[in-house]
Amino acid sequence: MVDAVKDLGEVVVVAPDSPQSAMGHAVTIHKPLRLEKTDLYGDIQSYKCSGTPVDCVKLAVDKVLHRKPDLMVSGINHGSNSSINILYSGTMSAAIEAAIEGMPAVGFSLSDFAYDADFSLAKRIAKTIASNIIKNGLPMATLLNVNIPKVSEENFQGIRICRQANAKWMEEFDERKDPNGKNYYWLTGKFVNQDKGDDTDEWALANNYASVVPVHFDLTAHHAIPVLNSWNFIL
Amino acid sequence: MVDAVKDLGEVVVVAPDSPQSAMGHAVTIHKPLRLEKTDLYGDIQSYKCSGTPVDCVKLAVDKVLHRKPDLMVSGINHGSNSSINILYSGTMSAAIEAAIEGMPAVGFSLSDFAYDADFSLAKRIAKTIASNIIKNGLPMATLLNVNIPKVSEENFQGIRICRQANAKWMEEFDERKDPNGKNYYWLTGKFVNQDKGDDTDEWALANNYASVVPVHFDLTAHHAIPVLNSWNFIL
Repeated sequence: MVDAVKDLGEVVVVAPDSPQSAMGHAVTIHKPLRLEKTDLYGDIQSYKCSGTPVDCVKLAVDKVLHRKPDLMVSGINHGSNSSINILYSGTMSAAIEAAIEGMPAVGFSLSDFAYDADFSLAKRIAKTIASNIIKNGLPMATLLNVNIPKVSEENFQGIRICRQANAKWMEEFDERKDPNGKNYYWLTGKFVNQDKGDDTDEWALANNYASVVPVHFDLTAHHAIPVLNSWNFIL
Repeated sequence: MVDAVKDLGEVVVVAPDSPQSAMGHAVTIHKPLRLEKTDLYGDIQSYKCSGTPVDCVKLAVDKVLHRKPDLMVSGINHGSNSSINILYSGTMSAAIEAAIEGMPAVGFSLSDFAYDADFSLAKRIAKTIASNIIKNGLPMATLLNVNIPKVSEENFQGIRICRQANAKWMEEFDERKDPNGKNYYWLTGKFVNQDKGDDTDEWALANNYASVVPVHFDLTAHHAIPVLNSWNFIL
């Protein structure tokens, strides 16, 4: 990620000091946070934080930058954050937090969990998208969720603007017994996509496009307001 | 919450075994979960879970109920989850999770952090809203975020269908030094509402109404898609 954007401006890194998969929009309120300078990126100012991805955004603005950056870039995540996964994702929640606080923001994810995943195409995609945000700005209260398929450069089909596919996880907990005979459960499950629309992020990724979904954080289902106004509340 | 809905059907409780404030939509993937039967609610079947509120929903369906319930009720939360707080809230994330999985779902919160807060009005509001959901159903892929003001019964103005106010938190971390001279940070901040609309949940609560916001989980900013399609991506 740093390599992708370092030519576009001054980069400052504030990142969690441990994996934060599936942390969603969690923030740390019952314990204090640590923030320490690192030298992981050579000349580039970088900090590690003991909190969640969302904590990092809040601390970066208040205690590192003392201002809002021109662009907040989150990720790149190892594994897809397409469709409903945006809600579980620490990477995307950090980008949402930045947008709530009024920063142009984008999160990037690569659909490849491999330890030695190839990020070279992702780097070029991230750079052109970040450049476009800096040049064009983003519509008000909108951030971007970018997912990049696991694909060779020659099979890559391009960048496609999409909507979030209406898909979900079907849980199947793996039930085991500990040495004391008591049950415990591992979360497992499979991703089920019933939404076959060719305007979705899932379609784009399955067809070797990088998906770009514009995201907002007004969760109001406006179309439902008239329906609810017809209800009869008796106290 | 149990008292509010126990006359409406068979109630089964699956709740976290510890406070989960500000857990957002976090799920537990790097450690296993525990689920144990309790006798906290007398005749009412109840379980405590070591995970997050969202974990509780997933486990309840897969390992306790073995089916989807007719209604999933989350809360009641001690403290408001109005406006943007829906994203940080474990209570509301559990309701969102239930809706993603296809259940009618509602989350309740009382705008009162006091240990001895009076939940009697909240109980009656929760009961009539839950009854309405069971009777009318909910629009597809929609859940409800209900917030109840701290108000006496005589000053209560009624139940109002609202949109999510466009408000946010302004962070001001409290910086301290530990006995070893190293910095640590407590998250603090103040809630800032620039959105004065009388159709918002914040307006309703400030004017002694209970707010009901219909919520969806499609985060696509559909209006931004044409704007992004005009961008020029150069790889």
